[in-house]
Amino acid sequence: MRGLYLIPGWITQRDGGAEELARRRATVQRVAGDNWTMDAWEVVGGPLSIESAYEEYLSVPGAVERLVEAERAGFDGAVLGCFGDPGIDAMREMVSIPVIGPGEASMLFAASLGHRFGIVTVMDSVVPLIERLAWQVGVDRKLASVRSINVPVLELGRDPDETFVRMVKESEAARDRDRADVIIMGCMSMAFHDRQTEMAVRLGIPVINPVYAAVKMMQSLCALGLRHSRRAYPVPPKLAKQATGAGSHAAR
Amino acid sequence: MRGLYLIPGWITQRDGGAEELARRRATVQRVAGDNWTMDAWEVVGGPLSIESAYEEYLSVPGAVERLVEAERAGFDGAVLGCFGDPGIDAMREMVSIPVIGPGEASMLFAASLGHRFGIVTVMDSVVPLIERLAWQVGVDRKLASVRSINVPVLELGRDPDETFVRMVKESEAARDRDRADVIIMGCMSMAFHDRQTEMAVRLGIPVINPVYAAVKMMQSLCALGLRHSRRAYPVPPKLAKQATGAGSHAAR
Amino acid sequence: MRGLYLIPGWITQRDGGAEELARRRATVQRVAGDNWTMDAWEVVGGPLSIESAYEEYLSVPGAVERLVEAERAGFDGAVLGCFGDPGIDAMREMVSIPVIGPGEASMLFAASLGHRFGIVTVMDSVVPLIERLAWQVGVDRKLASVRSINVPVLELGRDPDETFVRMVKESEAARDRDRADVIIMGCMSMAFHDRQTEMAVRLGIPVINPVYAAVKMMQSLCALGLRHSRRAYPVPPKLAKQATGAGSHAAR
Amino acid sequence: MRGLYLIPGWITQRDGGAEELARRRATVQRVAGDNWTMDAWEVVGGPLSIESAYEEYLSVPGAVERLVEAERAGFDGAVLGCFGDPGIDAMREMVSIPVIGPGEASMLFAASLGHRFGIVTVMDSVVPLIERLAWQVGVDRKLASVRSINVPVLELGRDPDETFVRMVKESEAARDRDRADVIIMGCMSMAFHDRQTEMAVRLGIPVINPVYAAVKMMQSLCALGLRHSRRAYPVPPKLAKQATGAGSHAAR
Amino acid sequence: MRGLYLIPGWITQRDGGAEELARRRATVQRVAGDNWTMDAWEVVGGPLSIESAYEEYLSVPGAVERLVEAERAGFDGAVLGCFGDPGIDAMREMVSIPVIGPGEASMLFAASLGHRFGIVTVMDSVVPLIERLAWQVGVDRKLASVRSINVPVLELGRDPDETFVRMVKESEAARDRDRADVIIMGCMSMAFHDRQTEMAVRLGIPVINPVYAAVKMMQSLCALGLRHSRRAYPVPPKLAKQATGAGSHAAR
Amino acid sequence: MRGLYLIPGWITQRDGGAEELARRRATVQRVAGDNWTMDAWEVVGGPLSIESAYEEYLSVPGAVERLVEAERAGFDGAVLGCFGDPGIDAMREMVSIPVIGPGEASMLFAASLGHRFGIVTVMDSVVPLIERLAWQVGVDRKLASVRSINVPVLELGRDPDETFVRMVKESEAARDRDRADVIIMGCMSMAFHDRQTEMAVRLGIPVINPVYAAVKMMQSLCALGLRHSRRAYPVPPKLAKQATGAGSHAAR
Repeated sequence: MRGLYLIPGWITQRDGGAEELARRRATVQRVAGDNWTMDAWEVVGGPLSIESAYEEYLSVPGAVERLVEAERAGFDGAVLGCFGDPGIDAMREMVSIPVIGPGEASMLFAASLGHRFGIVTVMDSVVPLIERLAWQVGVDRKLASVRSINVPVLELGRDPDETFVRMVKESEAARDRDRADVIIMGCMSMAFHDRQTEMAVRLGIPVINPVYAAVKMMQSLCALGLRHSRRAYPVPPKLAKQATGAGSHAAR
Repeated sequence: MRGLYLIPGWITQRDGGAEELARRRATVQRVAGDNWTMDAWEVVGGPLSIESAYEEYLSVPGAVERLVEAERAGFDGAVLGCFGDPGIDAMREMVSIPVIGPGEASMLFAASLGHRFGIVTVMDSVVPLIERLAWQVGVDRKLASVRSINVPVLELGRDPDETFVRMVKESEAARDRDRADVIIMGCMSMAFHDRQTEMAVRLGIPVINPVYAAVKMMQSLCALGLRHSRRAYPVPPKLAKQATGAGSHAAR
Repeated sequence: MRGLYLIPGWITQRDGGAEELARRRATVQRVAGDNWTMDAWEVVGGPLSIESAYEEYLSVPGAVERLVEAERAGFDGAVLGCFGDPGIDAMREMVSIPVIGPGEASMLFAASLGHRFGIVTVMDSVVPLIERLAWQVGVDRKLASVRSINVPVLELGRDPDETFVRMVKESEAARDRDRADVIIMGCMSMAFHDRQTEMAVRLGIPVINPVYAAVKMMQSLCALGLRHSRRAYPVPPKLAKQATGAGSHAAR
Repeated sequence: MRGLYLIPGWITQRDGGAEELARRRATVQRVAGDNWTMDAWEVVGGPLSIESAYEEYLSVPGAVERLVEAERAGFDGAVLGCFGDPGIDAMREMVSIPVIGPGEASMLFAASLGHRFGIVTVMDSVVPLIERLAWQVGVDRKLASVRSINVPVLELGRDPDETFVRMVKESEAARDRDRADVIIMGCMSMAFHDRQTEMAVRLGIPVINPVYAAVKMMQSLCALGLRHSRRAYPVPPKLAKQATGAGSHAAR
Repeated sequence: MRGLYLIPGWITQRDGGAEELARRRATVQRVAGDNWTMDAWEVVGGPLSIESAYEEYLSVPGAVERLVEAERAGFDGAVLGCFGDPGIDAMREMVSIPVIGPGEASMLFAASLGHRFGIVTVMDSVVPLIERLAWQVGVDRKLASVRSINVPVLELGRDPDETFVRMVKESEAARDRDRADVIIMGCMSMAFHDRQTEMAVRLGIPVINPVYAAVKMMQSLCALGLRHSRRAYPVPPKLAKQATGAGSHAAR
Repeated sequence: MRGLYLIPGWITQRDGGAEELARRRATVQRVAGDNWTMDAWEVVGGPLSIESAYEEYLSVPGAVERLVEAERAGFDGAVLGCFGDPGIDAMREMVSIPVIGPGEASMLFAASLGHRFGIVTVMDSVVPLIERLAWQVGVDRKLASVRSINVPVLELGRDPDETFVRMVKESEAARDRDRADVIIMGCMSMAFHDRQTEMAVRLGIPVINPVYAAVKMMQSLCALGLRHSRRAYPVPPKLAKQATGAGSHAAR
């Protein structure tokens, strides 16, 4: 089967962005394993990074278009490459393949692994966005806290060890002060540093990497033949021609 | 003072759209009274109507741009012309004048007028969007139900009396089955039919027109010198140059 | 139009009470603006100040009587002059003009201005009363905290600057520890010190003065022709003769 | 020990009121058993019956005074004789003996007896008051519904069998439509008809009589030496002289 | 009437266990008073103490069997001797006499005594179990916190004064940091130290001993003729022969 | 990798039980795919079926023992073969491999597929057990309803088409009256009829088979190297010797 990792921004405009895109493609391929062929796309013209409500909205129209294109190209499932899952509801309206939000997937796994989970993210500005997402996923009751390390997305890679130290520090606070049993990395650029194992050893509790969670959730839904409910995400009537496969999935 | 009613769609592309835009401008001017000068703008290129998550997202980038323009042009406050308040958080990040969502304003007035309120809207497809909005506003505990009349926005005016009859019927169900003390009209195109008084007489309970609620809320905030909290809606750092007045409102 | 600010206590029995009553009358007139004629009444025999559940109850019967009198005298709307909104439901049963509670009005504005709000009040003894009010208003989900400065109402004016310093200090704690985006002054005697602008500058987040919020809410409801729902607040049958206008508002 | 059943209204002004008061005194004595001496008092000047928020408030000042008197006269505990528990918080501020609300006591027993409970009361006008009480007690999560038989308090006795039939009918609806496991009689005048056993046989689920629940709760707290927390219900400083025993219960 | 205190573990296997069992029997007899004959049973083969989910489950089958035996032997009511109320739902399915959980009974009394209550227990491992119990009881909204003293059950008696000091210290934290108005002792072995009065004096707020709360709740239900709802706790059809009195309580 | 499907009951004692066990083994092998070796075990001495709280408890001790045995035998993960997930917390205390509850796994997938989900189960007696499970999983906010077809587990296979018809009928009610976007089959014996695709076609919304959901969740956690948090599920100290691998997973 074929899966797409769709970055809803223009990552190749970052310094070293082309290499990073290739690296992310390789990572999701590795996570998905041999039975899946993974690709990673960006959205030309999209934001460089997403750290505000406005940047979330700016990313959506282009990302939806790319996703419709991907479904037409035969992909079986997709992961939206931003932890805040911006526009995930619109995407589920417009395509028929499973579209997985890494924020959602991480929170669902976390809900299984413990009684309460903490999320460590980049900036204070996204905290309310992630809290709203937790409500939308339906697991807000188990959200211990969202804490930020106060490093902007584009500076996460400047000093990766300093970034790691801050992630561990806020995770410890989530564990000890907010009673989190599980930690979620709350940003994809943070997640692609791929240090969840090291963090888990330091913290003594599970650490969820949203890249991994989302890819596995996509594979599970595809394996089970499950798609998002059309009752929850109906095809917008005026956009039915643009949407893919809308007519052919009556039973969803 | 000057206020803007900003329709986040391309209303003049509808049949009779130019007249409708003029009519809406006149209505908001009448509601605002003599001390205010009101204007009504549309967003060229925006959706014809908004009845899905995707159309909400499609409306946001253009509407934010127009709003920034409006603040630069000296408007003192703005009402977003869509009941679902799409992108209201992004707008509050990008400008410093009060931006009022009619969904939010209506729900806040309704929370004062009774113990539970019902919302009557156009299509089932927007029900979950409005339920999420109620959570975001913070008054979801008082939401009795969201009911739809199953008439698309663009057909509301085809037979206004039939539309009215359906609105009354669903409102009665909200009052009698869902125990609503107050009814909110859950769509701006519905609201501009301006039949709230007639409905209230029929129902025996207050009916809130979101046009009126939003204009009054805008005027109140402006009169009180209150603006949305920058702690809740910080200026996105990478977009600070585009945002208006960001530097000059340190105390917010 | 004519509006009443009804203090549910016997303020002229305080030291300097007559001057204070006149000062409050002048303040609400200034807030209401030229199109409204405002008056301020007290309740002879009512409590000197309200800082307990019992004093709340003691204030209600006399205040309801005065309010009925005010409606008969032709007032178009009223603000209840106590932040805890004591007896607001009884008042809405007994009169047909809008009766605004300053606690309610402040919380509704605050719900619009940010994701979470904090309330700074006089004494620990009223904290549970205000928490119950937040539930009654329906916005308890957004209540970050209620903090007290531990100065009784009758001593707020002894050293106004000390009072101000304590209000700022607790507001900072609400902002920094409880994550409040907005602060509400949780006592009318505190509010009439009229230092909200100064506080907002110090805190960098909006500060809501309940006097202002309530007057504007009253004016908005009157302008919109909205009254509290009779379905929520029916006229008590045995008291129908005492109630005002009960028969003539069948449509409410 | 000595217990008081305090009716917060002027029951002897009802037709046959003196006999009814005597009958209630006898009932509470029977429920309390031989180790307790029970009395029943009314409040001269209080409302004839309580079916609105305003009547609740009207009852409180007089009832608090009587209760203070009762504590001074040596009563060990008291039951407030109205299902809505009006002013229970003020009473706990002003006296040091346990004061039991029958609404609260019934809901607490009901929370033990099943997963969800229903309340059957007199008029629609008290439904929101009882819903607020359930929140205040803390068991609102288990409240299946509050249903009314639409018979005013003063007419409950006109045709007791018709009253009984309506109570059974609404209880069946609570059981079958609202999934109540337990029924509470939601009015004291209803409760003194004393037909809970007959109802339970008809319904096949437990029926709680609030008279019985409150008396047993009062006896339990007295037996355990427990009193309401002064941290929750502090003595109002300005009223400390009127309050009873305030100084002597520092440890509460 | 006859009541049973059923310890769902093998207490006589502890050091000094036989004396402790006798002591507990004497305590519950003293609490129950002269009108009741109390006995205390253990479960041979049950766990030595219960400090984990698994030990809770291990205790249930044997305890249910003993309880069925007790009902056959003519007991009128029973208290389950473990604060976590393990298997209380199964017990209510299998017998018809009232079975009281001390956790439930304590939380229901606490809900009456204040706005928020804290629970002080033995080990962190039982905190989530007690939080779930609070939800099951229906009063989780009033739970301020569950705090542990980090002393295992079997070591509580090693240095009773040290245990007491720790209990006071965590209770003070519950009162001052978590705003608890009332404290519950969250372990039966802790409770049988019987130092609630001493603690209450130290803390200035009520302290609930679950032994006392449960015995009084059992006596109240028996006095009122109330039993747990069969709609909530139906007799398991395949086990009807083992269950006691199932057929004869149709009206429950 | 090796996975176990552990039925916490004595299924071979049912009529045709040995064949059914073999059939279930084959089904889970098919669902798991070629990279996994699956086995299915029963618990000798366990209940024939689980339709009450008591039967849930009866199943736990034996199932935990079998699971410990399975971990020692080298299984990498396990699925608990009962929809109510009885004893899942105890299992996570006692072993270190992932243990998946099918109720939990189904609800987590359902939370992704729509805004609200419905569960269709066997008997009314398990409805409250499943509602509690939804709270424990953390997704109770999205639970539309639990509906039963009123067919006992042991009779589900008597007339499979009648069973199917009833499942469809209750699912339609969940979809149309309770607004469920997704249906979960709420019983494993029901699930092994394997008619989810047929149901989904009939209903037009996704139908989740808990067998499939649980197996995929187990495989995902194993693939990601994630295990349940030891902070949430600590090894019971007194049982540490019986527990498997407790010492060797310090980092969990």
